[in-house]
Amino acid sequence: MIRPIAIAAALLVAPASAQNPENPVAPSPGEIVEQAASSEWIAIPPEDLLVMTLAPDREGKERRAVIQLMPPPFSQPWVENIRTLAKAHWWDGLAIVRVQDNYVVQWGDPEGDDKAKARPLPSGLAATGEAGYVATSEDEDVLRYAKLQDAYSPFAIFRDGWPLGVDWQSSHSLTYSAWPVHCYGAVGVARGMSPDAGTGDGLYTVIGHAPRHLDRNIAVVGRLVEGIEHLSSLPRGTGPLGFYETAEERVPIESIRLASELPESDRPAFQYLSTEGETFARYADARANRRDPFFIVPAGGADICNIPVPVRRSPAPE
Amino acid sequence: MIRPIAIAAALLVAPASAQNPENPVAPSPGEIVEQAASSEWIAIPPEDLLVMTLAPDREGKERRAVIQLMPPPFSQPWVENIRTLAKAHWWDGLAIVRVQDNYVVQWGDPEGDDKAKARPLPSGLAATGEAGYVATSEDEDVLRYAKLQDAYSPFAIFRDGWPLGVDWQSSHSLTYSAWPVHCYGAVGVARGMSPDAGTGDGLYTVIGHAPRHLDRNIAVVGRLVEGIEHLSSLPRGTGPLGFYETAEERVPIESIRLASELPESDRPAFQYLSTEGETFARYADARANRRDPFFIVPAGGADICNIPVPVRRSPAPE
Repeated sequence: MIRPIAIAAALLVAPASAQNPENPVAPSPGEIVEQAASSEWIAIPPEDLLVMTLAPDREGKERRAVIQLMPPPFSQPWVENIRTLAKAHWWDGLAIVRVQDNYVVQWGDPEGDDKAKARPLPSGLAATGEAGYVATSEDEDVLRYAKLQDAYSPFAIFRDGWPLGVDWQSSHSLTYSAWPVHCYGAVGVARGMSPDAGTGDGLYTVIGHAPRHLDRNIAVVGRLVEGIEHLSSLPRGTGPLGFYETAEERVPIESIRLASELPESDRPAFQYLSTEGETFARYADARANRRDPFFIVPAGGADICNIPVPVRRSPAPE
Repeated sequence: MIRPIAIAAALLVAPASAQNPENPVAPSPGEIVEQAASSEWIAIPPEDLLVMTLAPDREGKERRAVIQLMPPPFSQPWVENIRTLAKAHWWDGLAIVRVQDNYVVQWGDPEGDDKAKARPLPSGLAATGEAGYVATSEDEDVLRYAKLQDAYSPFAIFRDGWPLGVDWQSSHSLTYSAWPVHCYGAVGVARGMSPDAGTGDGLYTVIGHAPRHLDRNIAVVGRLVEGIEHLSSLPRGTGPLGFYETAEERVPIESIRLASELPESDRPAFQYLSTEGETFARYADARANRRDPFFIVPAGGADICNIPVPVRRSPAPE
């Protein structure tokens, strides 16, 4: 057992002021990220950001959440559909329809199941089948990535800022398949029974322990990068699967817009920490082996969803 | 890939009526649990249940949550302290002080850090150190349990209704240590910096992805068995670590009582599904290998926190 020096402080606080030069205190994962060089932060393109504005809360406070859409090679037909829907302002005036505790928040057209009442979809949406849930590659680069032990796939890796599950296509080839995984804040495409794979007009995000059994069974199209608390703290629905039972309970969506369609003054800008850099490697190691002062026993490992990829607002240019 | 028959239905619904005798549909994990014999359900003693009543919500609706306390051999000095605190009605009028998204809800004395204002603790509370976070045993039974692959410990098992991490004391002995793990809904003892291990007057529960790095670093003393939605849907605190910044934001606790201290008419009764029975084995397998109609690719595994132990209200005697 590693015994850190004893200091009085509030739960889980590891203040920098507690550092003792004779007994240096290991930095926390957050402190490691703060030390990253600016070159390790990668800008997210505005056409990959979706800004969701809910009706204000009871105090009249704004509720805004920002989603990063999945980059290639994953789930691109659905991502393109989502851009089409956002450009058509299709979600405006629709609603959060479902909040299931320790599972998902789902939004879309409350009348979507009733063809007579459903809002017509914009033209040009692609219909994609389950084959689109994974991407295959012969790129041997994957062999060079740090492999995490994973209960749901042969191994898991971080690549280009995203957590992925990986499997080999066969035991005697270098072709592999990879897929984005359902961590907290992942955004996926609601669908009915297979082979329906949804268009992207109904979406959900994870608000509980990672439901990784959904991996490769639904298209993962993005993740919340800001404001998930406006979704995760909503009242749970009391109907089956957490659907709201009355129209009054539903939370209205004022608008969902691509950041690239917003006026520049209102356009949020975000960066993610490169998962290929030295800082991310140190951060991931520190998440798996907490050595900051609060901790006594480092675990020696972490599951991929307990190593969230750091995302931040882009700092103002100097 | 396993392709189930295609049926139109809402997201994640696998209705029993969809079963087709020529192509039988595998039961969902929930359907397997419903088929358990009554002898597989084990009653939770009323002195192991803590009933937490919050102030009513804005609509005046009751908010009640029920915690099951950890049975021996784990964390018993803290559990006994918690019983002492409940019998003294110590928490009554105190509050939820912290809600951190994807992490924890914490309750206790908002003035606990200020000795002049803090509510005095009842006498007789045990002070226990970090050695109490794990239990050791030479009982070879552990070898017979189904071992789950785990990123945080050599392996994980279910035993007597609880998810545990397990490690060997050394490579050449049969002595092992085991500890309860931080899954969604786990209840732990808030503490300051080590070696403080807390008394149990400040408690928290997990409302996000399992923060398993806290295992063996904090005493796990129980789990929510009902009503966690009253905690997980609270507004997130805007101070550091999700602490509420003003007294008005805090949610008052009306009372916390042992079920055994309540009048029998007001005493809730719960049962958990034996984790040693045939039904739990089938349920855990189905959680790891979803074969019900919605699913296309069974994962082939699940992490221990994605296999929640079924708990139910005790049915009325026949």
